[in-house]
Amino acid sequence: MRYAWLPCLKSPVPETLKRPLSVADHEARQVADGVCFAVDRDMGEGYKLEKAGDGYRITGGETGVLYGTYALVRALAAGDPLPEGVQKPFYPLRMIDCWDNMDGTVERGYAGRSLWFEGGEFRYDPARIRQLGRMLASVGINALCVNNVNVHAPAQQLIGWLLPDLAAFADILRPFGVRLMVSVDFSMPLQCGLDTADPLDSRVQAWWNARADAVYAAVPDLAGFLVKADSEHRPGPNAYGRDHAQGANMLARALKPHGGVLVWRAFVYNCMQDWRDHSIDRPCAAYNAYMPLDGRFDENVILQIKNGPYDFQVREPASPLFFGLRNTRTAIEYQLAQEYTGHQIDLYAMPPMWREVTDCIGKEAVQAIAAVSNLGRDENWFGHPFAALNLFAFGLFAWDPDSAPAALIGSWAKLTYALPADQEKTLADMLLGSRAVYEKYTSPLGLCWMVQPGLHYGPNPYGYEFDAWGTYNRADRNGVGIDRTAAGTGYACQYPKELADAYGDPARCPENLLLFFHRLPYTYRMKDGRTLIQRIYDDHFEGCEAAEAMRRDLQGLALPEPDRAEALERMDKQARNARNWRDVINTFFHRFSGIDDEKGRVIYD
Amino acid sequence: MRYAWLPCLKSPVPETLKRPLSVADHEARQVADGVCFAVDRDMGEGYKLEKAGDGYRITGGETGVLYGTYALVRALAAGDPLPEGVQKPFYPLRMIDCWDNMDGTVERGYAGRSLWFEGGEFRYDPARIRQLGRMLASVGINALCVNNVNVHAPAQQLIGWLLPDLAAFADILRPFGVRLMVSVDFSMPLQCGLDTADPLDSRVQAWWNARADAVYAAVPDLAGFLVKADSEHRPGPNAYGRDHAQGANMLARALKPHGGVLVWRAFVYNCMQDWRDHSIDRPCAAYNAYMPLDGRFDENVILQIKNGPYDFQVREPASPLFFGLRNTRTAIEYQLAQEYTGHQIDLYAMPPMWREVTDCIGKEAVQAIAAVSNLGRDENWFGHPFAALNLFAFGLFAWDPDSAPAALIGSWAKLTYALPADQEKTLADMLLGSRAVYEKYTSPLGLCWMVQPGLHYGPNPYGYEFDAWGTYNRADRNGVGIDRTAAGTGYACQYPKELADAYGDPARCPENLLLFFHRLPYTYRMKDGRTLIQRIYDDHFEGCEAAEAMRRDLQGLALPEPDRAEALERMDKQARNARNWRDVINTFFHRFSGIDDEKGRVIYD
Repeated sequence: MRYAWLPCLKSPVPETLKRPLSVADHEARQVADGVCFAVDRDMGEGYKLEKAGDGYRITGGETGVLYGTYALVRALAAGDPLPEGVQKPFYPLRMIDCWDNMDGTVERGYAGRSLWFEGGEFRYDPARIRQLGRMLASVGINALCVNNVNVHAPAQQLIGWLLPDLAAFADILRPFGVRLMVSVDFSMPLQCGLDTADPLDSRVQAWWNARADAVYAAVPDLAGFLVKADSEHRPGPNAYGRDHAQGANMLARALKPHGGVLVWRAFVYNCMQDWRDHSIDRPCAAYNAYMPLDGRFDENVILQIKNGPYDFQVREPASPLFFGLRNTRTAIEYQLAQEYTGHQIDLYAMPPMWREVTDCIGKEAVQAIAAVSNLGRDENWFGHPFAALNLFAFGLFAWDPDSAPAALIGSWAKLTYALPADQEKTLADMLLGSRAVYEKYTSPLGLCWMVQPGLHYGPNPYGYEFDAWGTYNRADRNGVGIDRTAAGTGYACQYPKELADAYGDPARCPENLLLFFHRLPYTYRMKDGRTLIQRIYDDHFEGCEAAEAMRRDLQGLALPEPDRAEALERMDKQARNARNWRDVINTFFHRFSGIDDEKGRVIYD
Repeated sequence: MRYAWLPCLKSPVPETLKRPLSVADHEARQVADGVCFAVDRDMGEGYKLEKAGDGYRITGGETGVLYGTYALVRALAAGDPLPEGVQKPFYPLRMIDCWDNMDGTVERGYAGRSLWFEGGEFRYDPARIRQLGRMLASVGINALCVNNVNVHAPAQQLIGWLLPDLAAFADILRPFGVRLMVSVDFSMPLQCGLDTADPLDSRVQAWWNARADAVYAAVPDLAGFLVKADSEHRPGPNAYGRDHAQGANMLARALKPHGGVLVWRAFVYNCMQDWRDHSIDRPCAAYNAYMPLDGRFDENVILQIKNGPYDFQVREPASPLFFGLRNTRTAIEYQLAQEYTGHQIDLYAMPPMWREVTDCIGKEAVQAIAAVSNLGRDENWFGHPFAALNLFAFGLFAWDPDSAPAALIGSWAKLTYALPADQEKTLADMLLGSRAVYEKYTSPLGLCWMVQPGLHYGPNPYGYEFDAWGTYNRADRNGVGIDRTAAGTGYACQYPKELADAYGDPARCPENLLLFFHRLPYTYRMKDGRTLIQRIYDDHFEGCEAAEAMRRDLQGLALPEPDRAEALERMDKQARNARNWRDVINTFFHRFSGIDDEKGRVIYD
């Protein structure tokens, strides 16, 4: 069985080790002699790492010693200096949300079937789950939601008759400091004999209280529940005329005696929109829904907000809720699964995106951090061997949101492959630039949703144009985009004044968001003097060439097999995808605009 | 259990009746006293119907007496005169192709799950299958292919270990003169131990010979096999460098000793096309593939050709193969299942289309007639109660291709509902015009494929535009359509000279096919002086209004329940669909053309 990074850890963690300290000891022995541990419970997840004679001393809390051990392993493997002083995670909750269904499928999964569900039950290789625990702990991820936020039967029963199995699964991950979370179905009381799921009905509160008691009797350290409610046809409190604070608080109160948190997703919008109605603008939805509720959520509620106002598109502005909510605990949610970003076929390293978002909103804007998992049962865990980077880097970024993308990527490359220095740099540079390349050859300048409907891979610029999902670009023969300024839908006004003013002015708006915020003619002049249409053409030709250049670079890397063959095979698909995006997008806009490429390159009829 | 037409037949056909004559006797007793039968085997399916004293005499072949009986039932129920002289079917093979999968789904089925498959096996209500047999026999359909042409496991085993179940199913339909047919998988020898399915390999021929022997031992009157090969990724002879004549003849020779026919589908095209390559034009494909094979098919091969060169679109010209093939037995294939024509939600009565096609190609152009079934397990068999018309009329049209659409539709209305005469006329008129209405509000003037990809209901004008299926309209700011004249792809030249000349000239081309054959600017002048774009707008506004008018008409009909409620509910959906088509298509072309509606009606941005 492969381990995605740190190949120096050759000996699997034995099932007999039940505590983080035991695991830490096992791991430390594989890389150094004379490692000693000092547990200081007050340090929690924190640790201090020191040279001590010929060996090392790791001081830390219960899981802190484990994190310290992995920090030591990483430093020794990479030849880096030890981190100085006490290390503590910036975000106390660093979770991955797994969209695994109990039938074994993974919603938006691109790495094979579920690692732990199959045929309606838990079915897994315990050794592989321990290997997963090691991977998560080695980068500091401390929570894992086991099932899809869209709760399909029998996953409701994870907090019912499947509790013993959930507990057994929790037992495997506990020594790695990973606590489980469960996605629950807001309407579950209805399925269990009650005639209502109204959060203000005392029988409903009592039902959930009893359920939480049973759950925590089986899994005493469960991190909590995750809920998708009143979103894309999921049941929720709105059916009873209750708002999301009332819905979330009811569940939170059931969890509170047990120390659990209630993570409530803020992914709410009208998914039955009429494309003719320009007064509705999907990006406005979450802010409009949650700002009136600010301050009304209980303390153990965390509102989990996707990074952008749409849905994990290649380029979106940060959600205005990160600026607006002042009295609500929030988590930012990223998506490691490459739903809209290349299906783990195309390269798409995410740290630059996290850096941009964090620099925009400030790391203190949220109190927790989550990401949709990109894991699956494939031999290499991630479909593309390089997609491992995104989980690796997410863990370290969640620990320290001041991390530099280049450092995260370089570290992963070094800890995964023993490449010559120049090749290691080539690989790291390729990954560091991969998002920009993907962005260039897909939809331009912040235009979203030009993907194949449903599949979300490959171009279909008008595929969602007249659909009910609120995903429009409104391209016509004169121009493209939606006016989201004060004169338009007003979305830009949801930001603090300085940002709102910048976003609202085409001359000051970041060019990569120009068509997110503005409707512009094809002849609009960009800052460098090019027309908008020429910029679109240039980006797409350049993006496709950049993909070709990545292919050449990749061919020169002495990667171990099967990674090399897998990466090259996927790179061929990426190159085809890039060509298709280039030609479809260029043709689409050429058919509308009638304007030829100034450089005379081929745009198909 | 309901019977879709002829409610006067109240007593179900008992399972004890095993021969058409016994069924005929049972049915006749329900409508008249003193019916006597005279079997003349030489008359086959033919019959003669006469008054005899106070009763009737029906003279006919084995199944002829049954068809004569149903003709009597229909005449008495409708108050029509008896048909005079000997009646014989024009096409000896009148079949429905059921795209039923053994998991219980029906590909492109809109009337519920399969009537006879579920959970990987035959699972059905025998009484309902007898009712089905009655329905088919009452309109003269004499063959039914039990499984999808896309053969999904375990349907290969219909000619393997499922043979006893196939035989039991055949036993139920045999008294109704309905012979079964099975869709087979060309590669089946590979799944049964051979290392090839090469049709010229003697082991392969021997394998199929033995299979046919086993099949006919179980079902001695099987009509034959149906094959979809080298089409949309189905296996076929091309894999071995053999052509379709070689593939078909090999199977036909296995069937020949048993009197079976081999129906070979001519639905062949490149479904992995590059949209950038204008030299490939999907409608050209079948003609190019089969004309060189004309005269090379064995006598018991029937080449089954879809009515148009694409795939059951609302408006296509007839396939040029109907004119070109002179030395090949052919069947025309229609689709009763409303895949592209409204999903049995929208009204779409097909007899006018069959009339047009038959008038164009001549009824002698083909030797058999087939239609994809629109049946399912819904209580009313068809999803929409009026969709029954299409099966009813198909049977009678296959018997007599000179039938007038108005007569077929009027007959169905009279035999199904006891409406007052004015309402009966309203219903019949509504149905007679329903195809024209559907055509008006969907894609214009012979443009095809503007549907939601995959689903095929509702508009998505660019949804297939850059896909691999060969389904392009190439709309741009100047015009729309593909030039299929000699100056373009040359498709029009596949027709006989007179037709080719007419299709090739925009001034002589039927206007409802104008954009099938030509690429034209939006400002092109139609015969009546309107511009092309204005005609598109007008058609879509008028089509939507016509749908609204149908709704008003429907509300005035005193239909029995639940038909009335079901029809009204679906009509609401149709009206929404019509509005959506109207607005999406108008907006799409307005965005490209920039030309406003002359009448100032609303076209959304």
